[in-house]
Amino acid sequence: MSKGIVSRTENYSQWYVDIVKKAQLADHSVVRGSMVIKPYGFSIWENIRDQLDTMFKETGHVNAYFPLFIPKSFLSKEADHVEGFAKECAVVTHYRLKNDPNGKGLIVDPDAKLEEELIVRPTSETIIWNTYRDWITSYRDLPILINQWANVVRWEMRTRLFLRTAEFLWQEGHTAHATQQEAIEEAEKMHDVYATFAEEYMAMPVIKGTKSESERFAGAVETYTIEALMQDGRALQAGTSHFLGQNFAKAFDVKFSNENNEEEYVWATSWGVSTRLMGALIMTHSDDDGLVLPPKLAPIQVVIVPIPKPNEEIDQVVQKITEDLKSKGISVQYDNDPRTRPGFKFAEHELRGIPVRIGIGKRDLQKNQVEVVRRDTKEKSFIAIEDLSEHIESLLSDIQQNLFDRAVKFRKEHTSYVDTIEEFEKILEEKGGFVYAHWDGSRETEEAIQERTKATIRCIPLEAPEENGVDMISGKPSKRRVVFAKAY
Amino acid sequence: MSKGIVSRTENYSQWYVDIVKKAQLADHSVVRGSMVIKPYGFSIWENIRDQLDTMFKETGHVNAYFPLFIPKSFLSKEADHVEGFAKECAVVTHYRLKNDPNGKGLIVDPDAKLEEELIVRPTSETIIWNTYRDWITSYRDLPILINQWANVVRWEMRTRLFLRTAEFLWQEGHTAHATQQEAIEEAEKMHDVYATFAEEYMAMPVIKGTKSESERFAGAVETYTIEALMQDGRALQAGTSHFLGQNFAKAFDVKFSNENNEEEYVWATSWGVSTRLMGALIMTHSDDDGLVLPPKLAPIQVVIVPIPKPNEEIDQVVQKITEDLKSKGISVQYDNDPRTRPGFKFAEHELRGIPVRIGIGKRDLQKNQVEVVRRDTKEKSFIAIEDLSEHIESLLSDIQQNLFDRAVKFRKEHTSYVDTIEEFEKILEEKGGFVYAHWDGSRETEEAIQERTKATIRCIPLEAPEENGVDMISGKPSKRRVVFAKAY
Repeated sequence: MSKGIVSRTENYSQWYVDIVKKAQLADHSVVRGSMVIKPYGFSIWENIRDQLDTMFKETGHVNAYFPLFIPKSFLSKEADHVEGFAKECAVVTHYRLKNDPNGKGLIVDPDAKLEEELIVRPTSETIIWNTYRDWITSYRDLPILINQWANVVRWEMRTRLFLRTAEFLWQEGHTAHATQQEAIEEAEKMHDVYATFAEEYMAMPVIKGTKSESERFAGAVETYTIEALMQDGRALQAGTSHFLGQNFAKAFDVKFSNENNEEEYVWATSWGVSTRLMGALIMTHSDDDGLVLPPKLAPIQVVIVPIPKPNEEIDQVVQKITEDLKSKGISVQYDNDPRTRPGFKFAEHELRGIPVRIGIGKRDLQKNQVEVVRRDTKEKSFIAIEDLSEHIESLLSDIQQNLFDRAVKFRKEHTSYVDTIEEFEKILEEKGGFVYAHWDGSRETEEAIQERTKATIRCIPLEAPEENGVDMISGKPSKRRVVFAKAY
Repeated sequence: MSKGIVSRTENYSQWYVDIVKKAQLADHSVVRGSMVIKPYGFSIWENIRDQLDTMFKETGHVNAYFPLFIPKSFLSKEADHVEGFAKECAVVTHYRLKNDPNGKGLIVDPDAKLEEELIVRPTSETIIWNTYRDWITSYRDLPILINQWANVVRWEMRTRLFLRTAEFLWQEGHTAHATQQEAIEEAEKMHDVYATFAEEYMAMPVIKGTKSESERFAGAVETYTIEALMQDGRALQAGTSHFLGQNFAKAFDVKFSNENNEEEYVWATSWGVSTRLMGALIMTHSDDDGLVLPPKLAPIQVVIVPIPKPNEEIDQVVQKITEDLKSKGISVQYDNDPRTRPGFKFAEHELRGIPVRIGIGKRDLQKNQVEVVRRDTKEKSFIAIEDLSEHIESLLSDIQQNLFDRAVKFRKEHTSYVDTIEEFEKILEEKGGFVYAHWDGSRETEEAIQERTKATIRCIPLEAPEENGVDMISGKPSKRRVVFAKAY
């Protein structure tokens, strides 16, 4: 049955947009570059957010809230930071509208011009470090381990639902420490948290590594990243954690007196993931029939469909099944809408990526069984009602694992090791994916490769073994391979 | 012991600011009118938000997210709405900064001027109803029951932490219905939800009523409000729910075909509460020693203090007590900081409004008991350790009830019924509070009273009995008393 979704092989970009729209996840907004996150999409984001929030709190962090607006002058205080963000800022210049005296409707009131323009936050390092100056005096005030859930704006010219939008939702952790070592440990810890979340909840395998200088966050000393692989063979940066050194402390004059009563600049980290994860989730698992969701993040894990329509006997069985499943913490929906037929319902639930569908018909009930279909493989089985809730519980865990294994397998099939630029180009053209190659560490080579192939260094992987080799372009020596890919 | 808090009788406004700052709830920001919500303040807001979110979902609502920016022209489409909000809008006019060619630093790039200015949302009716036009075709698409948690900006000239800030956090429900009756029922239902939340969770009694025309939300046909009384005798509007009629549907051309296949405009409601509730919570219960929090919203419900300092025996008892309390869903903190003395700790915990403090010292342990002090009355008692967790559980519920009863008593003592303007003025001057008086229903009288006394009509109470009387100013007949007060 056609759901109006183009297949991945036919047009991958369109397939992605079709899934986002048909599964009712999000839509373009009339405001250029902004999106509307629809209720079903938002309920997936709520699951992502709540699980991350739990993990942040378990690692000792607390939430707070800082202003949306940042004085323009703050942006200039950290030299790299301003380079990174000044070109894509929404700028508030006035604080009032009025009726045009010439009758041309509502106009900006020229008398309400701000003395200093305000920037809608693209990220909050500057406003937060300006605040930390007032909060930090002594080593006793450290560490500060704060996270913020917020909207941010980066004026992007080419936008894509979830993946790149002018406004997006995210969390940004901003921590302050007395020592360099503690700050580095914090940045690494959150890097681990992101990787664990991606793999265990999103069922999305990631490569952990650090960024090359050119791909580092504007203002960071080191950027840790998790890189995932999408089904079209392109990489997606799914989360970053930054060791900021003393850059922002120096820019905003944030010092503390240490245990020996000496003044030192404070050490910093910041780390964030955004609604971009929704794009990653969709592109990692979904297929030509619609969304596929890992059970741990699915708003509805099990849907029950009466066949061909609800009746008293079915309703009773459903009630019992629902209670059993809910007592195991499994979310269930009973789709007893009398206006639609089972076939229509099946297609809808596939489109929305509900991990398990239970069909209940008269004949099955006579045999005390129901039909169970898993979304990931579409495999169908008949399960005795008395075994059902235990079966579903283990099935959900199977699906979660299978999605991860499938993605690992895909990544393995799309990971190559090459030693020459010709091989490199051939691989990128033929199958894409991650390409491990030697790199001499210079920005020149990195740029030459990007210009020639559009691929970038996704990361210098943490777990790559030392291996002597030579740079594909310069022929200079290299000690380890780095990961290249074309990326979102 | 002085905590740097001015007493309420000496300077109520300063007392409020002192509590907010000393209890580490929030602070002014360098950005005019914006505040920083600090971790402890934010954790109270998280409890408010999570409980409300649960209640919204229990009443069938789902969350979504709409853009921060609203095209300027949208604001003009509903005549009353633009009147209400145009004068306090933050306006985005440009989307890029650049380095001044004359070396004067970072400037707004004149080449990056927006064709149409964008308003930072002061509320989202316009952008949401513009979106609903695409979502609604038939009665089958209705109702839409959406809520959004978001930040909004209203450019206020005189701001106060939590009570009135240029940027604040809130939720805004926006629902769409096929019939007038269903929309009115929805607005009333959410009005009830707010009242229940205020009374049962915030322990803050509220009067439920409707607003007079002049105090109605800009664009509403009817505004339902809950009005609370603060300790200085001034009223605070704590939440509003609006029946919007077809105003926004007409402004944004949102029609549906009904079951008879006739086109009709959609009926609407919107409803919201904000971080202003934090201000209401603080001013309803706190005293000259600091914050007082109802147990149901306190981030930490019980704090345990070792006397005079921790040792192995005390630590063991604390571990057992903590486990028992946590198993009852009670949040506990063990303040075993060796650097501070019990007296200092007691003062700190009072300041932060922790509902119950348990003190554990050597002598008490010999008697198998601990000291228990409740924050609301400061009453102290000694409780056998074996009875402790049950005692604490019922004590928390007592405190919750006592705070509510105390606030009801205060409100009763500060509620007056008057029939002449002279009495009215006398009461307002001498003790403030809610004043029930007759009103002829005209805007002229309402304005005359406000000009003369600064008091406004807080609401036309839902539960007031019919009673014949005459307006204090005009002498015209009135059928029921309305509630006046000076308000925040």
